[in-house]
Amino acid sequence: MSGTLYGIGLGPGDPELMTLKADRLIRGARVVAYPALVAGESFARGIAASAIPEDAREIRIEVPMTPERAPAQAAYDRASTEIAEALSAGEDVVCLCEGDPFFYGSFMYLHARLADRFPVEVVPGVTSMTACAALAARPLVARNERLTVLPGPLPEAELTARLAECETAVIMKVGRHLAKIRQVLETVGLARNAVYLERATLPAEKALPLAEAPDPAPYFSMILVTKGADPWL
Amino acid sequence: MSGTLYGIGLGPGDPELMTLKADRLIRGARVVAYPALVAGESFARGIAASAIPEDAREIRIEVPMTPERAPAQAAYDRASTEIAEALSAGEDVVCLCEGDPFFYGSFMYLHARLADRFPVEVVPGVTSMTACAALAARPLVARNERLTVLPGPLPEAELTARLAECETAVIMKVGRHLAKIRQVLETVGLARNAVYLERATLPAEKALPLAEAPDPAPYFSMILVTKGADPWL
Repeated sequence: MSGTLYGIGLGPGDPELMTLKADRLIRGARVVAYPALVAGESFARGIAASAIPEDAREIRIEVPMTPERAPAQAAYDRASTEIAEALSAGEDVVCLCEGDPFFYGSFMYLHARLADRFPVEVVPGVTSMTACAALAARPLVARNERLTVLPGPLPEAELTARLAECETAVIMKVGRHLAKIRQVLETVGLARNAVYLERATLPAEKALPLAEAPDPAPYFSMILVTKGADPWL
Repeated sequence: MSGTLYGIGLGPGDPELMTLKADRLIRGARVVAYPALVAGESFARGIAASAIPEDAREIRIEVPMTPERAPAQAAYDRASTEIAEALSAGEDVVCLCEGDPFFYGSFMYLHARLADRFPVEVVPGVTSMTACAALAARPLVARNERLTVLPGPLPEAELTARLAECETAVIMKVGRHLAKIRQVLETVGLARNAVYLERATLPAEKALPLAEAPDPAPYFSMILVTKGADPWL
């Protein structure tokens, strides 16, 4: 009998925002897999560190951060082969994922390669999106409001079109796209509705007016755009 | 010195999907507030039940489910007065919220009434949206994909316009709007991309093809619309 692949959402960064289920599964793990920078740190492993058993075998997935997709695809191909061997041998594999595995999470790349051959269980986690809303003290959506989630790397014309018709918007992956996003928000008249957040729930977390956001922003940054004054009252 | 109001996200329903932080704060609570149906159950209290101290004082917020907003507003007005008294007396108040407090959460109504007068800390939780994606075994968004979240009660014309241009869409609060939503998805050619979910992470959870969804659907139901075949590979 093959083992089960667990895709475990760890939440936005504060280890205390792991779920009880994530904590239990990680503490019982014999094989733990996680993405890491090439020759660098693993944010996911850092979140879960205190729960990982000392004698667990670790599968480190070094993912090249390149504009081309092929190097990262090759890394996930290799990792999937290694994970498949463990699963075939009857071992469960616990895969650590920042945030939620299915919300811009790298676990999707393993899921796409392994879910047709092995049992998979996805454990949802707290997303950076709602963690940023909590840090900003801004409700995202209430009642019949719409929410639009946009990656910052989208082209300027597309961002402009989507933001022009949004109610609440969340712009992910701001990074080096900050200047473009700020320009778009000015164009559509929403710059004053926007707040910039970085590293929410980590000790270095920041919430700033858009005008004071650092350029370039770090990768783990986000812009929230909320409209109206207490529409939920 | 006044107490702190905690808005605690409890996640989608499985008590094990509470965060470690939620669990700790609830176990240490002296005053616990939560929404409930009039003379009926509290879903939020049910999720947190095993963590609530026996000797905690409970503030039950009975919220009338009426089309008009005034009765619910009056209920939140009364609850805010009672909570403000506890906070003014120096007591912390732990408010229990299904899902995430700022993602279609009723905590927003208390936040709007109390956040300008008392310290508030919001603890984000797992949303039903990513729990449904996990149950459906469907990744929501990867790379530079957009996500559109739409409440089911929106008018047919608006749903049609938004779904026609969506990539991944999540339709919340399906309930008695199922027939309308199904019609819209047929119109925009997305019915076969849709999956129906109810009570994700609870023992009675269900994932069904859209054609087999019950009509009317329960309040805690959702439709996910995903496009493309493994675009993240």
